[in-house]
Amino acid sequence: MKNADYANSQLFRIRHSVAHIMAEAMLERFPEAKIAIGPPIEDGFYYDFRLPRGINEEDLQWVEKRMKEIVRGKFDFVEKEVTPEEARAQFADQPYKLELINDLVSGRVDENGNEIASPASKLTFYTQDTFTDLCRGPHVKNTKEIDPDAISITFKPPAGAYWRGDEDRDQLTRIYGTAFETEAQLKEYLNLLEEAKRRDHRVLGEKLGLFIISPLVGKGLPLWKPAGATLRDTLERWLRQTQIDNGYLPVVTPHIGNLNLYRTSGHYPYYKDSQYAPIEVDEEEYLLKPMNCPHHIMIYKSEMRSYRDLPIRYAEFGTVYRYEQSGELNGLTRVRGFTVDDAHLFVTPGQVLEEFKKAVGLIQYVFTTLGLTDFRARVGTRDPNSDKYVGDDSLWENATAAIIQACEELKLPYHVEEGEAAFYGPKLDFLVRDVLKREWQLGTVQVDYNLPQRFDLEYVSEDNDRQRPVMIHRAPFGSMERFIGILIEHFAGSFPLWLAPVQAVLIPIADRHMEYANTVAAELRKAGMHVEVDAGKARMQAKIREHRERHIPYLLVMGDKDAAANTVSVRLRTDEDLGAMPLADFISMTTRLIGSLSPELK
Amino acid sequence: MKNADYANSQLFRIRHSVAHIMAEAMLERFPEAKIAIGPPIEDGFYYDFRLPRGINEEDLQWVEKRMKEIVRGKFDFVEKEVTPEEARAQFADQPYKLELINDLVSGRVDENGNEIASPASKLTFYTQDTFTDLCRGPHVKNTKEIDPDAISITFKPPAGAYWRGDEDRDQLTRIYGTAFETEAQLKEYLNLLEEAKRRDHRVLGEKLGLFIISPLVGKGLPLWKPAGATLRDTLERWLRQTQIDNGYLPVVTPHIGNLNLYRTSGHYPYYKDSQYAPIEVDEEEYLLKPMNCPHHIMIYKSEMRSYRDLPIRYAEFGTVYRYEQSGELNGLTRVRGFTVDDAHLFVTPGQVLEEFKKAVGLIQYVFTTLGLTDFRARVGTRDPNSDKYVGDDSLWENATAAIIQACEELKLPYHVEEGEAAFYGPKLDFLVRDVLKREWQLGTVQVDYNLPQRFDLEYVSEDNDRQRPVMIHRAPFGSMERFIGILIEHFAGSFPLWLAPVQAVLIPIADRHMEYANTVAAELRKAGMHVEVDAGKARMQAKIREHRERHIPYLLVMGDKDAAANTVSVRLRTDEDLGAMPLADFISMTTRLIGSLSPELK
Repeated sequence: MKNADYANSQLFRIRHSVAHIMAEAMLERFPEAKIAIGPPIEDGFYYDFRLPRGINEEDLQWVEKRMKEIVRGKFDFVEKEVTPEEARAQFADQPYKLELINDLVSGRVDENGNEIASPASKLTFYTQDTFTDLCRGPHVKNTKEIDPDAISITFKPPAGAYWRGDEDRDQLTRIYGTAFETEAQLKEYLNLLEEAKRRDHRVLGEKLGLFIISPLVGKGLPLWKPAGATLRDTLERWLRQTQIDNGYLPVVTPHIGNLNLYRTSGHYPYYKDSQYAPIEVDEEEYLLKPMNCPHHIMIYKSEMRSYRDLPIRYAEFGTVYRYEQSGELNGLTRVRGFTVDDAHLFVTPGQVLEEFKKAVGLIQYVFTTLGLTDFRARVGTRDPNSDKYVGDDSLWENATAAIIQACEELKLPYHVEEGEAAFYGPKLDFLVRDVLKREWQLGTVQVDYNLPQRFDLEYVSEDNDRQRPVMIHRAPFGSMERFIGILIEHFAGSFPLWLAPVQAVLIPIADRHMEYANTVAAELRKAGMHVEVDAGKARMQAKIREHRERHIPYLLVMGDKDAAANTVSVRLRTDEDLGAMPLADFISMTTRLIGSLSPELK
Repeated sequence: MKNADYANSQLFRIRHSVAHIMAEAMLERFPEAKIAIGPPIEDGFYYDFRLPRGINEEDLQWVEKRMKEIVRGKFDFVEKEVTPEEARAQFADQPYKLELINDLVSGRVDENGNEIASPASKLTFYTQDTFTDLCRGPHVKNTKEIDPDAISITFKPPAGAYWRGDEDRDQLTRIYGTAFETEAQLKEYLNLLEEAKRRDHRVLGEKLGLFIISPLVGKGLPLWKPAGATLRDTLERWLRQTQIDNGYLPVVTPHIGNLNLYRTSGHYPYYKDSQYAPIEVDEEEYLLKPMNCPHHIMIYKSEMRSYRDLPIRYAEFGTVYRYEQSGELNGLTRVRGFTVDDAHLFVTPGQVLEEFKKAVGLIQYVFTTLGLTDFRARVGTRDPNSDKYVGDDSLWENATAAIIQACEELKLPYHVEEGEAAFYGPKLDFLVRDVLKREWQLGTVQVDYNLPQRFDLEYVSEDNDRQRPVMIHRAPFGSMERFIGILIEHFAGSFPLWLAPVQAVLIPIADRHMEYANTVAAELRKAGMHVEVDAGKARMQAKIREHRERHIPYLLVMGDKDAAANTVSVRLRTDEDLGAMPLADFISMTTRLIGSLSPELK
């Protein structure tokens, strides 16, 4: 749902109204509480309070129960215009409201803290039951529009908030809540929240030994442990080969560059605030690479190119660095160093459609293969009222038409968003829904008229004159780190066989089966599988439980019969027991499944 | 030949004498020349002069011819002790010699500019024919010991030199020369020089499209073009799989780290002068990674380890950065950013021998597979007279014994060099001779007691107490960049089939054969080969010549007969013509050769 649609929806009115109801209940529980603001937000609402003491679980339960009672009271929400004096009288002992009234009247900010253009011409109250708030609505007409069983509130320590978001002012207690139109919708939402918690890639990353973040190395700089490095390498090798099959050429470039390179490209000082500071040495300055494009451009520029050479598609898994604020960092999904599955295509203007289509088609293939089948495209075009864009109108029109035509021909669902283009050209972003229905912006394909101009790129045309190529930037994953974070949550750590960092664990029943287990392990490794032998002292059932919790696709328990018959007894992570099968059959089954990137285990 | 052996050799005396003879001839050509110093060096000798004008080819020819005449004159080299006054009188119009005499007498530096401990107790002259030099010898007794046909001199612009190596003093002209005992030896040497020039990896790197160095990106920071990136990737994949087969675990770590990490490891400030300056941001400092070890240590430390987990072998193709002085930079062999095929082994003290042996064995396998079969090991041990080393005596003795035992068991030729150990433990370096007989220091295996202590590393022993592991650092290539630079020169760009960035070029005879060429290319790519189709307009013979100069293993010319019979006509880069063979046979032949890393083409 788009923002404008949401603000006009019944759901928005319900949530806004329930926020007021929560404030009413809170004031009953804490009569001395000072109330701040309580807006609806994306997934619900919150309200900020200054409380005389810390809030506890009992308070929350009391408040939530009381909210449901108020809802059941079938109270009208009554709107009333008031003068500043009436408003000040109403909120005589509510200092935050008084400040809001003053700001509204003097025309600085509205009641939600947003700057306003001119002083409010009127103030409005909304009242339900015993509670009145300074508010512009909208609200439901009567609380009977609200389902009392579709309400939930929560406190997330340390969810403190500052009055007006200002660290120098009062610290407040923020209570979050949500409401839906039906109890079923609320339950589904709470289940998804619970599921998202269970799938948290930071928790699974630790449990599955995928990565760590070490404060001594640096915040936002993940270190990949063997299982994570194996997963990463599998993904990278697959995409690299897919790209080579599609005519991409690998390149490798350094992780730093002279600051003048980024001055030429315009990345510096444009992105200065989100960069690590430059390295100064011998009166030169170097920057950790914020983008791979300028490096690839220098390779393009190292030879005179002919129209016969184009398109040239340079691909690199290139690690770049950004200095994100430490408060923004989050596991793998928001980091300070990440590897882009980057490629830059240098094409003639006439090749834009075909190459764009192929780039989008490759991304479709990538997501579909990974089981991310619920995606759509957002086509970002120019804002017709802005002059910030570079490049001729005709280029923009052709490129935009090409992008839309590409979507049509590829039967890719898309919508156009005006003003969402980069200043250097129109683009297409993939919006991908994971299994929890969360939408992520992933792969991107962008047309660029700017960098070819800034670097004065050329090729010799069929008529033997110098022409300017167009660049296409594209990355299916975007950031390997973020993408793997999303994959971990999408699969809840239970990766498809071909991606699993450990594909089989071999469990010898007794010490005398170790030799056979090692022989089988060597055979499986020769076939290209990632396997472990569990020679630990734990009991069989404990081992099985442990490895099933690690979502290892196959558990191979081996005893006398297996050793004698050269078989493996195969148990899947789904708990299905395939029984004993000849080792050769197991290898041919797994080789087939892995080779075809199958989501199946048998 | 070791330095001490060389200084006592007849070859050294010959070269030293020929340097004087060159000075004599130069003074005849340039009577107003001022002479500086003329020592023997590794491959010959030089002499520095201040000349009234630039030297040209004609001068050099005249001087070399005159030198041979002097040699044929059978002059004695006569030594004579002189007083400072006699010396000053002899060199009254030679200001550099006068300065040398003063320095020798006052005890600052000797005639070659090296600091001396005390004033020279005597000065000596050596005289041959008409020329006298201030010199301590040794020289041949008579020029008849010199073969006039085994002499060669050269001037390498801009081989200017400063008097005393000081940029603020006079700039001199340095003439290089060499001399051997026989003409045959000189010819062999000059041939090798010529061959080295032909094989120069900077020249071949450009010609074969392997890499560029872009001043705008930064000096010493190579960018790998598609062919080079493919070669690099082939090497990396092969070594990576070899390592996995040998129980190594891949890890991936960032290219920067907090300065405190390197303070803990001791890399900072120890290596401060060879680093890019730290990045300062938000009151923290980060350093471009000088070494991968501290990062791997943080992964080891992220879990409590048991003796049952050891050995743990973490491997990473980890790019590190060093700030080499710009005068030191050279193509790929001396760079500022390079990728180490690094691994760190965490082992119990009892595992040192076995793990060291396996690490050395793997490096032997790597070099042998690459056709670098002429190698020996240098075992670096403690200097018994120094106290700079960390770790108990018994640890050192055990580790040194283990290294030597490993060499013995692996039948690896080795020699021990006292004092060549790192301060943190003994080590083994591979010295590898390339096809030009040049010896390179490549792979290294080092025992380390220091970092486990600095990072307080532990494992739980069988007796359930905390023990300190030993670390082993090892890298077969050392630096991917430098190693590839050496490989380019070793193979003169004519890489073994499996390493060749382009393995076959398909040349359709006429436009009507393009379709067949594309079909064959697709088949070959499916079989994993790197191939190109040459659809250019050049004539057939020109295409064949061009691709042979690129050392492409197979040239496949395809015409009507091939298209009709589904064959390929195979010509090797050696110019051997294998004739037409069914495509399937060609694929099975190349698959076999590539899979077995064969040096052959058929």
